[in-house]
Amino acid sequence: MSDSKTTALVQAANHGVAWEKAFGYAQAIKVKDTIYVSGQLSHDSAGNLVAPADLDEAGKPQSFDNMEAQIRQTYENARILLAQFGASFDDVVEETLYVLDVDAAFSAASKVRKQVYGAEIPQLASNLIGVSRLAFPQQLVEITFRAVVDR
Amino acid sequence: MSDSKTTALVQAANHGVAWEKAFGYAQAIKVKDTIYVSGQLSHDSAGNLVAPADLDEAGKPQSFDNMEAQIRQTYENARILLAQFGASFDDVVEETLYVLDVDAAFSAASKVRKQVYGAEIPQLASNLIGVSRLAFPQQLVEITFRAVVDR
Amino acid sequence: MSDSKTTALVQAANHGVAWEKAFGYAQAIKVKDTIYVSGQLSHDSAGNLVAPADLDEAGKPQSFDNMEAQIRQTYENARILLAQFGASFDDVVEETLYVLDVDAAFSAASKVRKQVYGAEIPQLASNLIGVSRLAFPQQLVEITFRAVVDR
Repeated sequence: MSDSKTTALVQAANHGVAWEKAFGYAQAIKVKDTIYVSGQLSHDSAGNLVAPADLDEAGKPQSFDNMEAQIRQTYENARILLAQFGASFDDVVEETLYVLDVDAAFSAASKVRKQVYGAEIPQLASNLIGVSRLAFPQQLVEITFRAVVDR
Repeated sequence: MSDSKTTALVQAANHGVAWEKAFGYAQAIKVKDTIYVSGQLSHDSAGNLVAPADLDEAGKPQSFDNMEAQIRQTYENARILLAQFGASFDDVVEETLYVLDVDAAFSAASKVRKQVYGAEIPQLASNLIGVSRLAFPQQLVEITFRAVVDR
Repeated sequence: MSDSKTTALVQAANHGVAWEKAFGYAQAIKVKDTIYVSGQLSHDSAGNLVAPADLDEAGKPQSFDNMEAQIRQTYENARILLAQFGASFDDVVEETLYVLDVDAAFSAASKVRKQVYGAEIPQLASNLIGVSRLAFPQQLVEITFRAVVDR
């Protein structure tokens, strides 16, 4: 790790949850004018999953009923990180939603996103991708963000 | 949404299709020197899917025969967006292809990409990722782009 | 391809493997202060897969036992590319690990990443996404990187 990583040009934001240390990464870093937010998920400040999906015998989610609740908490966690840099959802330029069920996510995310971005048509790039597994088996959604400040 | 989103530093490009308003996002935005293009897919200007896959009883594509046609239309839609910023494929620095079948996509995309980028070996970063579902069940491919202008 | 692609502002790095020419892309490009590294995978300098997974009759990996070995070689290949720009893992701001098995990848990547980034908690954004297929059937992991230099 070079000294440049510890200058004021780089700042890191974290939740203080166990997997930050276990995997070894920052929840978000700011380099120059850009904030890179790692994939956020639905957990509280103690690191407990919020609205985890019930799993079937194969360890797969039994339903996607908790999609909206997970999406809502996921954006809340992103908001907390952005605020640590003095930034907000107004600064987000791109997000990618990785989800276990695209149909459930489309309707839930449409609703939640218009609220958190505060606009009927939020002006950012957005991607919605159906994937097979996320970090936790009970996790239905993970969202990455890119924000640009000083503009 | 802060006022900064409406200054000349941010511009948005859209196709005018229904899901832009439904989900609430911009097909592409330009912030400073960078254009963020949301995941593009194979549709015409009226929002009808072009070369949609036939689905089986489970709602999954029966074949990947339409992969090349979908990829071609997807790049055409990206071209249309880039042009709204006065940009072109020459300005693209990175693309990510999310596909339902990697083998079908590799051969089809190799062919189409060399044509649209106008080079035997296009000089951009490229990722090819096999995923389980995209926005529409009949959709075989979605491609995101990052372009940098003023260089 | 415009002339601007061949100025000193853009540089490309490659491994010289067959699929660079077949698909048509650069393993990494540098534009202004940013290096975009295409999805790296576990291969040697001759283009042979390192620690490929054994496949079952359906062409799927029989196990994820080779995850750590593949992750290690994948980071080594990224290191080689970054070095071509005079850059290193110290310059990486974001990585995304696309993996066929999240649980196997979490433990293996935690170990390897702390070694290659040279820190107990590497200060970069990181994403871990479970996907259904990567470029080669025997491939268990692919990792993209974004690095920012001159800071």
